[in-house]
Amino acid sequence: MSITSDRLMRLILGDWRIFRKSHDELKEKQLDDLETVGNFLLSRRGEASGTVLAQRLLDNFESATAQSQLDFFLKLAERFGADQERLQQAIKAYQDHPCDETVHKLHLAAEPRRQELIRRLNYSSGGTYRLIKMRERLHASMAEHPQLTAVDTDFAHLFTSWFNPGFLEMKPMNWHTPASILEKLIKYEAVHTIHDWADLRNRLDPVDRYCFGFFHPQLVDEPLIFVEVALSKDIPGSIQQLLDGERTPTPPDEATTAVFYSISNTQKGLSGVPFGSFLLKHVIDYLKKEIPSLTTYVTLSPAPGFAKWLTRERAAEKSAFIAPDQREALRILDLAGWQHDEQKVEVVRDVLLECARAYFLLAKTSRGTPQDPVSRFHLRNGAELHRIHFMGDTSANGMRQAFGLMVNYLYVPDDIEKNHEAFVERGEIVASDVVKAGVSKTPAKKGKRGRR
Amino acid sequence: MSITSDRLMRLILGDWRIFRKSHDELKEKQLDDLETVGNFLLSRRGEASGTVLAQRLLDNFESATAQSQLDFFLKLAERFGADQERLQQAIKAYQDHPCDETVHKLHLAAEPRRQELIRRLNYSSGGTYRLIKMRERLHASMAEHPQLTAVDTDFAHLFTSWFNPGFLEMKPMNWHTPASILEKLIKYEAVHTIHDWADLRNRLDPVDRYCFGFFHPQLVDEPLIFVEVALSKDIPGSIQQLLDGERTPTPPDEATTAVFYSISNTQKGLSGVPFGSFLLKHVIDYLKKEIPSLTTYVTLSPAPGFAKWLTRERAAEKSAFIAPDQREALRILDLAGWQHDEQKVEVVRDVLLECARAYFLLAKTSRGTPQDPVSRFHLRNGAELHRIHFMGDTSANGMRQAFGLMVNYLYVPDDIEKNHEAFVERGEIVASDVVKAGVSKTPAKKGKRGRR
Amino acid sequence: MSITSDRLMRLILGDWRIFRKSHDELKEKQLDDLETVGNFLLSRRGEASGTVLAQRLLDNFESATAQSQLDFFLKLAERFGADQERLQQAIKAYQDHPCDETVHKLHLAAEPRRQELIRRLNYSSGGTYRLIKMRERLHASMAEHPQLTAVDTDFAHLFTSWFNPGFLEMKPMNWHTPASILEKLIKYEAVHTIHDWADLRNRLDPVDRYCFGFFHPQLVDEPLIFVEVALSKDIPGSIQQLLDGERTPTPPDEATTAVFYSISNTQKGLSGVPFGSFLLKHVIDYLKKEIPSLTTYVTLSPAPGFAKWLTRERAAEKSAFIAPDQREALRILDLAGWQHDEQKVEVVRDVLLECARAYFLLAKTSRGTPQDPVSRFHLRNGAELHRIHFMGDTSANGMRQAFGLMVNYLYVPDDIEKNHEAFVERGEIVASDVVKAGVSKTPAKKGKRGRR
Amino acid sequence: MSITSDRLMRLILGDWRIFRKSHDELKEKQLDDLETVGNFLLSRRGEASGTVLAQRLLDNFESATAQSQLDFFLKLAERFGADQERLQQAIKAYQDHPCDETVHKLHLAAEPRRQELIRRLNYSSGGTYRLIKMRERLHASMAEHPQLTAVDTDFAHLFTSWFNPGFLEMKPMNWHTPASILEKLIKYEAVHTIHDWADLRNRLDPVDRYCFGFFHPQLVDEPLIFVEVALSKDIPGSIQQLLDGERTPTPPDEATTAVFYSISNTQKGLSGVPFGSFLLKHVIDYLKKEIPSLTTYVTLSPAPGFAKWLTRERAAEKSAFIAPDQREALRILDLAGWQHDEQKVEVVRDVLLECARAYFLLAKTSRGTPQDPVSRFHLRNGAELHRIHFMGDTSANGMRQAFGLMVNYLYVPDDIEKNHEAFVERGEIVASDVVKAGVSKTPAKKGKRGRR
Repeated sequence: MSITSDRLMRLILGDWRIFRKSHDELKEKQLDDLETVGNFLLSRRGEASGTVLAQRLLDNFESATAQSQLDFFLKLAERFGADQERLQQAIKAYQDHPCDETVHKLHLAAEPRRQELIRRLNYSSGGTYRLIKMRERLHASMAEHPQLTAVDTDFAHLFTSWFNPGFLEMKPMNWHTPASILEKLIKYEAVHTIHDWADLRNRLDPVDRYCFGFFHPQLVDEPLIFVEVALSKDIPGSIQQLLDGERTPTPPDEATTAVFYSISNTQKGLSGVPFGSFLLKHVIDYLKKEIPSLTTYVTLSPAPGFAKWLTRERAAEKSAFIAPDQREALRILDLAGWQHDEQKVEVVRDVLLECARAYFLLAKTSRGTPQDPVSRFHLRNGAELHRIHFMGDTSANGMRQAFGLMVNYLYVPDDIEKNHEAFVERGEIVASDVVKAGVSKTPAKKGKRGRR
Repeated sequence: MSITSDRLMRLILGDWRIFRKSHDELKEKQLDDLETVGNFLLSRRGEASGTVLAQRLLDNFESATAQSQLDFFLKLAERFGADQERLQQAIKAYQDHPCDETVHKLHLAAEPRRQELIRRLNYSSGGTYRLIKMRERLHASMAEHPQLTAVDTDFAHLFTSWFNPGFLEMKPMNWHTPASILEKLIKYEAVHTIHDWADLRNRLDPVDRYCFGFFHPQLVDEPLIFVEVALSKDIPGSIQQLLDGERTPTPPDEATTAVFYSISNTQKGLSGVPFGSFLLKHVIDYLKKEIPSLTTYVTLSPAPGFAKWLTRERAAEKSAFIAPDQREALRILDLAGWQHDEQKVEVVRDVLLECARAYFLLAKTSRGTPQDPVSRFHLRNGAELHRIHFMGDTSANGMRQAFGLMVNYLYVPDDIEKNHEAFVERGEIVASDVVKAGVSKTPAKKGKRGRR
Repeated sequence: MSITSDRLMRLILGDWRIFRKSHDELKEKQLDDLETVGNFLLSRRGEASGTVLAQRLLDNFESATAQSQLDFFLKLAERFGADQERLQQAIKAYQDHPCDETVHKLHLAAEPRRQELIRRLNYSSGGTYRLIKMRERLHASMAEHPQLTAVDTDFAHLFTSWFNPGFLEMKPMNWHTPASILEKLIKYEAVHTIHDWADLRNRLDPVDRYCFGFFHPQLVDEPLIFVEVALSKDIPGSIQQLLDGERTPTPPDEATTAVFYSISNTQKGLSGVPFGSFLLKHVIDYLKKEIPSLTTYVTLSPAPGFAKWLTRERAAEKSAFIAPDQREALRILDLAGWQHDEQKVEVVRDVLLECARAYFLLAKTSRGTPQDPVSRFHLRNGAELHRIHFMGDTSANGMRQAFGLMVNYLYVPDDIEKNHEAFVERGEIVASDVVKAGVSKTPAKKGKRGRR
Repeated sequence: MSITSDRLMRLILGDWRIFRKSHDELKEKQLDDLETVGNFLLSRRGEASGTVLAQRLLDNFESATAQSQLDFFLKLAERFGADQERLQQAIKAYQDHPCDETVHKLHLAAEPRRQELIRRLNYSSGGTYRLIKMRERLHASMAEHPQLTAVDTDFAHLFTSWFNPGFLEMKPMNWHTPASILEKLIKYEAVHTIHDWADLRNRLDPVDRYCFGFFHPQLVDEPLIFVEVALSKDIPGSIQQLLDGERTPTPPDEATTAVFYSISNTQKGLSGVPFGSFLLKHVIDYLKKEIPSLTTYVTLSPAPGFAKWLTRERAAEKSAFIAPDQREALRILDLAGWQHDEQKVEVVRDVLLECARAYFLLAKTSRGTPQDPVSRFHLRNGAELHRIHFMGDTSANGMRQAFGLMVNYLYVPDDIEKNHEAFVERGEIVASDVVKAGVSKTPAKKGKRGRR
């Protein structure tokens, strides 16, 4: 897999003519220059020794300083775009004679050279993973250097093609899965932290717990996304109850409900590549076959934007969503430890749920979509907003981001297309009657606080 | 995986508005119309139920008549190209304000809608293989319908991205390989027919025989290309000797030479997607590690265009390559069974080898490349034209296509880039001194006819 | 894995004292003496270098002449039995003081040294398979040398422990199974010859065909026994119809009946080790889960002893089973080609079936068991003799061994224990009412000859 | 896999006659009686329904109280031994006519019925593991009930046959091994505690760390024994240095030495079944091939009996091994925390090492074998006592059991047989010259305390 500098020198000598430089300018260190190797890789020579050059470029990139990496990205943006001259000619040819042939050439001419470069970098073994990591670093620089967006677009375009759901494999993960994969679950769990291997085992090993991931054949040890599933006899409203290590597991043949209680993406470098919704549908298909007693597929989801939204509304001079008396009642939330005072909890319950209904059903972003990102994801996938739970996540994080609220989104296989269309085309938020009717229909029952 | 017509009807009802038709026009059979389903699949609805619709379209296509399949291809050509209006606008936007953003939009606008359709067809399980087979059928119609070339170009573009060598896995195949894969070797061997399972075993099981294939993760039972390898102590010149079932196998640790004696592509639907050269390089890497005694990597290849070329030259009034006395001598080739008459064979030997040198070294196609397709493949890969053998393949097929000639192409790992460049950039045919010097340097040795 | 002669010489030098011989007697060739190596292996030295010595002995044995192999077997019989002196002492100790301890020592003293030798031969990699083959050769000599029976008994004792059903794994075999295993099916099929790979595929690949084998972890490529299964909608009576390559496969979810139509042992060296009945029960369990529509498990079996028995009875002066008029009718069987003459066939049908009933239900061996070996196997397993078919196997072999008769044995899971007990303890032949009632109850139906 | 009580009742009804009891005595609960089911299993009925009965007995046993389990063991001892009457007859037959046949029958008659019972219990799926656990419970009762030794002997006899090294598979374990197996390493590590998964990873994942286990095909998740290996450039003397999480890993191609620093058995129920020595030899073979630079195979072992022995000698009025002035010096060991006082350490060093030489080379058990169990194991395996290290294990446990001493045993492949023989036959303790010469030859080097 390595290449001697001698062979590389010959290689440079060969290709140098292309760039019209005299031989004596040549130095080994030029092979350390990322742009130079990139140009080699795109040259004809790159066809024969693509694997070696791709590896060289990736090695160099990974061992480079942050500044050199940024320089390389900037050069990708500036010098590896479409060839303007060629593009002009292609436009002219198309305008002179519009036909399949000229459209095709226009399409090719408008393709940034970066795309072919990324394709060739993928020749080397392990290239796919290294490219994902390269994009991850790119993201870190994009805020300061908006021109890098063009580079990112090319990565996204190719990754979307490469990570076509048809190429991904859904696999169950359990306690028999290699440790090298399982440690990724601990690392990447983004919703409800996995504290240690005992906690992990508690989520994988009991008979009523499942976990599934999407894998790409080139990334054997890396689930791209994974979902944790609990079987139960009803729709749960409290994550603490669901994850309670002392609970008695539900025998799978008595379970009626599969609860998706955590979905985590693992690769920042694949952001924007949509496969989450496909995973859920594959998992539903799998569970249907495996556990015939299941009738209900539902999430237990966080409401990560609720606290921020509510705080904004309360701070605003005037809110379209909160009435003055509600504002008054919500002042309890400013008292430290209110959640441990049963009386305060009872006072705030109904007001908070009313606000939550407004947050989920009425409040919109500037683009007209729901405020809550998790809500957007599930509604877009064709789920129904099924229940809103008070005190569903009493962890520090749950209190901070949503004053403890949790949400069930219900997946009814036969309604998925209909719901998806309603949301995507008409912006309609499909919600259960209970959610639409509001608080009065779901009276708090003493002692079953988290399980309404 | 199936879908009830009821659900499909609801689906149509939902999407129909998009196409501005009244509901009463709806009929189940419209889902049998390939174009209609294709449009659904590209609509927003396609996002949610892509897998189901993709499967439906592929099912319909495969059970359709040849005429309906052709109609579908023609519609793909006519109606699923780039949107001209959008393209015009993108050109204008670019010309008004040339920047990354407008180039990107131009690139998208110039992309035929077919490409996204093919990507979505790949969502369904098994989709990749079915798309390869679809392109195979497309090829059958292209001669009569040249406008289908545009459709083929789109397939080729996506397949080249999907079958990037970084996604292919080189795997050894042997007698422990599943029968379902091995039967493909019998089916697809294109160079030296495998007669039956005993013949196959003879090519896989002896200690001095290997076979390697490239596999794509989505096509587990289908090698995309495979190469058969023999180990030996010298460079062989006769395929009959090499495949002799009675020979004593060479102990691997005594072998110095790996002979690639057959390379076969299996999927017509992947024609034009280049992975052959990558396979050979992977195989060389593998064998180097596995069998340290190896020093030489060489092919034993056919010359499939030689007989046709020679016949043409002989028939021509004047040939730049054949002298009159050679013409005279070559008349022996017109006598049935000349190859069984030792005297005739001796007479024709040197003349034929001289003609072969002309064929390989001098004769060119109208595009300036060598006449022989196998020669073009190996020279482009960076090999050297190493030896030409008289009576190297005395099978009926070998006599018919090349009057028995066979060729060794030599792969010297350190020279591959250099040779590739010489051929690709300067059209130079890299040949050994022996081949360049011609007949006089390689006197026939009695009794070693096929092994010079 | 090899051992230098130098080290072996040191090894001999070390152990020689044990045998009280002077060092100068030593020669390398003694390591070629099977008995000598056997004694080494049983010595203390054998503990440390058991693997090497075991390998040496097996290598020597396999490359020895048939005569040397026989000599070794004879020495195993004569000199590797129990130590008589030690046995006498153990008997005395037991008689003086009968207790667990003395019984245990008696048990050990009565164990032939051969058993430990065989255990140690198994230390070497691949030893198990080589020991099976050694016993196979032993069998070839047993007829002439009855004293070898003692050696065989020791092999059988250890093999029965090693091939305990708890250590065997039932595995489905199909067209995705490695060719190296599938070729064993062709080789070992003992009931209905598999002609070639196309025939094999016809028995494995259709959706209504299954094949299962028992594998031992040490013999990965060798099914020990396998059974071929056909799914159908009724109980078949003709093997030719069942194996017809042109038939339309039965969709598995429409099948009600699993037909075991061929059971073959593969290793003669494992004869007498009982695992056949366990395989059938595992297969029934597997199919029950896999194909819920199945209700009936039945064989389609040959009657390999029928023709020989009938010929003997006809030849006898007086038969307890054949009446004089039946004798007369049976003379048709002596006419060549009677089976192709519809009239003759009709004449002989009822007589032959009556004789078959006598053969299966009444005729006994000298040990009081049924005449037919296949019948003994299935009745012992707890099956019921369910149907006897005329012209069920019209192949040359089927006509020769049973005048075309075939038999169904029915496995009713709930009756297996009951039937087994009836047969084993009371010698009762469990048969269906139809078989017990005889011919008159099952009139031949025109045109459905083989399917009664 | 379950059995209805109805079928079991029929089963009892069937077999009851054997035991000559009237039917009305029958009750379902008798199937809960372990002895009764044991007798069923050994009856003819057990042949047909062995799997079901075996499962039943094991289920009952495992859910029984400790008292019932003990009762069952006692009955196994009393009533499932050899049949005395039959044994007497077999002795008589042998004495009347001593031949292979009568010896064989004597052997069978002297076999306790328990052995066949254990074989049949193994029919059920998972039976092997459950029998190992059954023996583990048996051991807990043996001290109080010496008659159970006979039962244990039968388990040991069968396990030795079943766990013949030829049936075990050596497998590397690493960070890609399933978590369900790796957690066993944490659980069973008996020498140097693995504290958590991070610690485990530190022993498996670095390039200079290996771990190997013996697996039996029936116990897929259970290594029977495992050894942890470190690669290094010299022979280490300190376990703390070797396990230091901060150390820089040795590149495998620079390593010369493989250090076996921990060997742990996992199944108490397999005690007395010897496979440890085979594992080490397999591992040496594996490493030799994998890492050609290795020249030295050595352990870093504890001396678990040293402290106890030394304390005994010091307490004794007179010791053959400790001189009076040494006794005096050793009083330092009674001072808490002496090991943290450099001066005290220096004073005690030479005395302690002299005592260690006496312990390893001279002191013997009443059976004439070395005092140290680890020493016995490695010397018996053919290793050489190579080095004794002062302050090699400064953990609490290391100080408590051996005042910090550690030992290297060296495995020289060519000397293994010779050493084994010297130890087993002549009781000779093979030690390096350095160990034999004693302290004066190995002066302490400042600053390299643990690495002499």
